[in-house]
Amino acid sequence: MNDLYNEYVKRLQKIADINYSSAVLQWDQEVYMPVNGAGYRAQQLATLAGISHELSTEKELGELLEKLHDSKSLGIKETANVLESLRVYRQNKKYSTDFVIELNKTVSESFVAWQEAKAKNDYAIFKPKLQKLIELKRKECELLGFEEHPYDAMLNLYEPGLKTSFLTQLFADVREKLVPYVKSILSKPQPENGFLFTHYDKDKQWHFGIELLKQMNYDFKSGRQDISTHPFTTNFSSTDVRVTTRISETDLFEMIGSCVHEGGHALYEQGLPSNEYGLPSGEYLSLSIHESQSRLWENMVGRSLAYWKCNYPSLQEIFPEQLKVVSVEQFYKAINTVKQSLIRTNADELTYHFHVMIRFEIERDILIGKLNAGDLPGVWNAKYKEYLGIDVPSDSKGVLQDVHWSHGSFGYFPTYSLGSFYASQFFHFAGREIPELQHQIKEGNLMPLLLWLREKIHHHGRTVLSDELCKNITGEILNFNYFFNYAKAKYDKLYE
Amino acid sequence: MNDLYNEYVKRLQKIADINYSSAVLQWDQEVYMPVNGAGYRAQQLATLAGISHELSTEKELGELLEKLHDSKSLGIKETANVLESLRVYRQNKKYSTDFVIELNKTVSESFVAWQEAKAKNDYAIFKPKLQKLIELKRKECELLGFEEHPYDAMLNLYEPGLKTSFLTQLFADVREKLVPYVKSILSKPQPENGFLFTHYDKDKQWHFGIELLKQMNYDFKSGRQDISTHPFTTNFSSTDVRVTTRISETDLFEMIGSCVHEGGHALYEQGLPSNEYGLPSGEYLSLSIHESQSRLWENMVGRSLAYWKCNYPSLQEIFPEQLKVVSVEQFYKAINTVKQSLIRTNADELTYHFHVMIRFEIERDILIGKLNAGDLPGVWNAKYKEYLGIDVPSDSKGVLQDVHWSHGSFGYFPTYSLGSFYASQFFHFAGREIPELQHQIKEGNLMPLLLWLREKIHHHGRTVLSDELCKNITGEILNFNYFFNYAKAKYDKLYE
Repeated sequence: MNDLYNEYVKRLQKIADINYSSAVLQWDQEVYMPVNGAGYRAQQLATLAGISHELSTEKELGELLEKLHDSKSLGIKETANVLESLRVYRQNKKYSTDFVIELNKTVSESFVAWQEAKAKNDYAIFKPKLQKLIELKRKECELLGFEEHPYDAMLNLYEPGLKTSFLTQLFADVREKLVPYVKSILSKPQPENGFLFTHYDKDKQWHFGIELLKQMNYDFKSGRQDISTHPFTTNFSSTDVRVTTRISETDLFEMIGSCVHEGGHALYEQGLPSNEYGLPSGEYLSLSIHESQSRLWENMVGRSLAYWKCNYPSLQEIFPEQLKVVSVEQFYKAINTVKQSLIRTNADELTYHFHVMIRFEIERDILIGKLNAGDLPGVWNAKYKEYLGIDVPSDSKGVLQDVHWSHGSFGYFPTYSLGSFYASQFFHFAGREIPELQHQIKEGNLMPLLLWLREKIHHHGRTVLSDELCKNITGEILNFNYFFNYAKAKYDKLYE
Repeated sequence: MNDLYNEYVKRLQKIADINYSSAVLQWDQEVYMPVNGAGYRAQQLATLAGISHELSTEKELGELLEKLHDSKSLGIKETANVLESLRVYRQNKKYSTDFVIELNKTVSESFVAWQEAKAKNDYAIFKPKLQKLIELKRKECELLGFEEHPYDAMLNLYEPGLKTSFLTQLFADVREKLVPYVKSILSKPQPENGFLFTHYDKDKQWHFGIELLKQMNYDFKSGRQDISTHPFTTNFSSTDVRVTTRISETDLFEMIGSCVHEGGHALYEQGLPSNEYGLPSGEYLSLSIHESQSRLWENMVGRSLAYWKCNYPSLQEIFPEQLKVVSVEQFYKAINTVKQSLIRTNADELTYHFHVMIRFEIERDILIGKLNAGDLPGVWNAKYKEYLGIDVPSDSKGVLQDVHWSHGSFGYFPTYSLGSFYASQFFHFAGREIPELQHQIKEGNLMPLLLWLREKIHHHGRTVLSDELCKNITGEILNFNYFFNYAKAKYDKLYE
């Protein structure tokens, strides 16, 4: 049996080697590749993806997994690995090569069309490609199968076990509780935050960001930070986990927020068991759990008063001209301004979920066949009016703002909200189990929190489902009230 | 037939995609990878190498190549491609999987042992591993086959068609002509060069190096420069060709020399036909031709008086304190100081070949069975005494100085000298065919030379052998007299 399991490990590690090689090429593409490198780089990535797909769907792998699955002589972790690998294998086998080729081709065309449509503010350029993609995604739902709702099949690509019905209930909570709460906040006077948008030197910001990462105990021996257009985290093993950031000289919190957010993702990857390389037990659980880590650090820690009581003095020292007359409380208020806005990625931690809710509802209706590409701008604008109370001035700032759909990613957006909600639920229990937590944050001692996250979340890799993980930590599955209570407690004070 | 050729192109491009992916991973490893990334990176590279080897030795590829080779309906370039690919395929097929695994394992062990041996100045640590490697390399010569001398098989890995007998004659010329000439130079007073070794700011050097690359018409849209421990050039297509440099604040010419040298390599790669990606016609001809390009730029251009008449004023402007009292003629003399020295990589352009000659003689005798690992320190030291007149104070600065043997690279060193000799022969004809060449160099107009190299060398990829290329350009195969005459003309003046 050991031999069979070793053979399984060897095969999975080979696939991981290819996928992580692709990740290196993608990282390079985003941060250092010269402009003319793009053409053959795309071909190199396609070749690696093809080889990875071949290895992931080899008949011999399937037979090996079935044998291991039937054997019942494995330990708990090994059983969980085999089960998860079998699920993924069976999922991969549902795709015919023809379908994969057509999907990839359509995605490439859609992405190009989306870029042009967004730049020219002309949805008509994107519409036919998106419609073709929508039809393929509906077909994909049928291929993959589902119990209740076709959209479930999409959700499960990112979040195994997640159901549309669960999200429908969750966003009903958002609509019933968070929407009116935000309305009540917005009737109050807004904090002064203009000082965040004066001038902040790039190099000084960069060094401050590095210090924040170090304080979080991000391990620079197993990672590095670079600059890219859109901040991201990537990894090539749990001992090489890289983050990127972007720096705006006229928006101080842009870099700080992205640094702490990506740092949170990276701490998760660095905390995965490195000797489980390539196996489910060595990989992140799901997108929502990944996002729970970034948002816990960004919002619960990085936008807290305790955190800035620790870090604001050095920020003030670096930027005395801009910040000498701003108190830490004023700074804290400014970085937590709640404001209805057009663009998801610029939203605060409360209204953010309205953006996701809109996308969730649209995706759900697309995949059940209620909406088509031609309907989207109208529906989009109506929902922004309804939930956020704002008029969308152009499709570029509306339905064309996100890259996701052009990539064929339907079902991805909800994991952002799930991540935030999980973050508040986890952080609530972290606070209960680490009584000195707020004090430690104020002292810049972030190790106890990290160790707690390591033990409760990181070390488990993907050996459980999100629901189980959440139950193990908090005694129940995801419960929106944790987020709502966190929000109320924080923003009642901020907007008293 | 077209279909078969297209199938061939597809297969070769797939192999290229894998090999260039490895090159990206290796580049990253040298320039940006965090220290803990090393372990799994090695595994990822091994997996890619394994896949590349599988694809390169597939039965179907061999059958396809044989069919194309028999068909006689291809154009000249296509015929050359198929012929070369068939040669490489047959060569690859001579290796059994077991042999490749054993060789790779032995190389890994040898490299580790060499690092330790060099650091501790203890040849005994390296000796047993090197002996095992030597025995495998002798076996490899038998596997590959040879007409005259087993060492030919090694040489042909880097330089198809090269024979030991040719090198024996070539280095006889070196010994008979260059050794006494250098002796005569060394009896004359040495130029003052202490000013090269004062203090030169890193950042200022970096920017000057970038300007030199731009002046050479290195295309930064298809490349970039980074810092690494050992300067190198790598490419992932002819539209993504990267160089690295290193900067010493107490040795000004280190960065300049490496910049122009690697720039020369890079111009070659950028000049290869980009639509021949993955095919012999899109790849460099051989190591010696590659080296001819780097050395032509480094020595014939970058160490010439004309070049510094152009560039010295800006260098003086950047470093006024260090250089204000130094004339361009003094600078030119200083960077062309000839000096017997211990370390090959620090050698000037004349004594450099004595270092190579020693390694050539030792490798030749190793592969015919005359020398074993235990003999090397003694033989090494005796030859350094004989050809360079110096005593080797320690094995670290002697037989352990180069990485090549620990990598299993026997037959590589001679390509460095061949490269220099080719460079002088090519440059002689460039000067004849571009009458304004020296004037253009003095003006910083390096494009005519580049265009000449593009037409004569770069555009041909690997569709001819080095001998043929050299005949096409100069009317004869490599002739040591071009180098000797170049050297005499230059150094007679310098050491008058």
